[in-house]
Amino acid sequence: MQLARVVGTVVSTVKEARMHELKLQVVRLLDEQGRETGAYQVAVDAVGAGHGDVVLFAGGSSARQTERTDGKPTDATIMAIVDSWDVEGKVIWSASGDGGSS
Amino acid sequence: MQLARVVGTVVSTVKEARMHELKLQVVRLLDEQGRETGAYQVAVDAVGAGHGDVVLFAGGSSARQTERTDGKPTDATIMAIVDSWDVEGKVIWSASGDGGSS
Amino acid sequence: MQLARVVGTVVSTVKEARMHELKLQVVRLLDEQGRETGAYQVAVDAVGAGHGDVVLFAGGSSARQTERTDGKPTDATIMAIVDSWDVEGKVIWSASGDGGSS
Amino acid sequence: MQLARVVGTVVSTVKEARMHELKLQVVRLLDEQGRETGAYQVAVDAVGAGHGDVVLFAGGSSARQTERTDGKPTDATIMAIVDSWDVEGKVIWSASGDGGSS
Amino acid sequence: MQLARVVGTVVSTVKEARMHELKLQVVRLLDEQGRETGAYQVAVDAVGAGHGDVVLFAGGSSARQTERTDGKPTDATIMAIVDSWDVEGKVIWSASGDGGSS
Repeated sequence: MQLARVVGTVVSTVKEARMHELKLQVVRLLDEQGRETGAYQVAVDAVGAGHGDVVLFAGGSSARQTERTDGKPTDATIMAIVDSWDVEGKVIWSASGDGGSS
Repeated sequence: MQLARVVGTVVSTVKEARMHELKLQVVRLLDEQGRETGAYQVAVDAVGAGHGDVVLFAGGSSARQTERTDGKPTDATIMAIVDSWDVEGKVIWSASGDGGSS
Repeated sequence: MQLARVVGTVVSTVKEARMHELKLQVVRLLDEQGRETGAYQVAVDAVGAGHGDVVLFAGGSSARQTERTDGKPTDATIMAIVDSWDVEGKVIWSASGDGGSS
Repeated sequence: MQLARVVGTVVSTVKEARMHELKLQVVRLLDEQGRETGAYQVAVDAVGAGHGDVVLFAGGSSARQTERTDGKPTDATIMAIVDSWDVEGKVIWSASGDGGSS
Repeated sequence: MQLARVVGTVVSTVKEARMHELKLQVVRLLDEQGRETGAYQVAVDAVGAGHGDVVLFAGGSSARQTERTDGKPTDATIMAIVDSWDVEGKVIWSASGDGGSS
């Protein structure tokens, strides 16, 4: 999985029937230190993530292994909201505002 | 999923039997700001997208999770036509002509 | 799918039993304008493509969704021979010799 | 599979139900000579790896082929702890401290 | 599939139970002309390849479509030993020593 930040939303009226009711979010990928890499994904939200949340998303067929996305044509799904992560004993980012590059 | 714009069509007479009746479209990948990245895909159209439409496509096995592509050898399928998307509260692109780099 | 040109053949005597009878072809990937990108794949031929043909190949699990490759350890399969493609209303390449960079 | 070193942990309270009880680890990818490449993954631990361990992880649907990850939305799973590896007859790295860039 | 050369071995005692009895080999990826690209994979050997052999490996779920790897968490499997390959009518590499960059 990759770390990412929710920064936007995609609106689509005409879509595959199985995609109805699913929220499409634009996420910016983060590197290990919490910096944006310049890459993005449009991901289905399976956990109720909101604007600004740091999340984990899974790609490929694993993106379909959630209750909301089973059998649906998504190749990127947000499956966790991140509280914090640490590297080499140091808190890199924390939702409560501790740590580095938030 | 990645954002892309439909720019062309591929014609093929000799193809795997399961691919018959499927429309093959050339799409140019877009970055988060709606700019072309230089990459492309040939994607099966599952939603009736037309020339110039901005779309979302799914890759890998997820490309087969639509009614039109189930069990077929496609690794890229257009599964949504995009009306608009926003990033950081700003409309980046809109089919109705609002927003940025359209 | 990506566009590619068939440029060679791989010979293998010792291989997984399920791979017997399958033809392994070297294909050079093409960009949207028909230029070689420098990347290649060794792909299983599911449609009878010959040397010099421009083809489409599918990757990942989709490479196994043809009659010849079902259940076989291929991650790249030629599933269509291309007659022509166009971008922005212009024929980029055509097997009959019309168009650009053939 | 790719070689990697376990360097951190991701904490998540709100996540897909199927992800509960799974440990999420930050791993830094290593090249063939044991040097960090700058890339990372957040991987599910299926083998009890600890901080500093050199491991192998599998990606894509193969990340779900372990007892702990079957049917779960992970696209990267640690499935082996590495004791040592050699290249061209030379030990590159060994958990016991022999060899190169450990 | 990609061409690669077997250059080493990975030793692991603690690993997912399904991985026991499988040989893990370090392979260096080759380009179309038989030159090393700098990339590597750790691949499961499904065909009895030895040090120095030029091989083909399959990635993703296709890596599990061999007798030895069915249902196992491998995302890279050697499924053929290469005797030779040619590009544009020229033998690029041959196990018998004919051709180019061997």
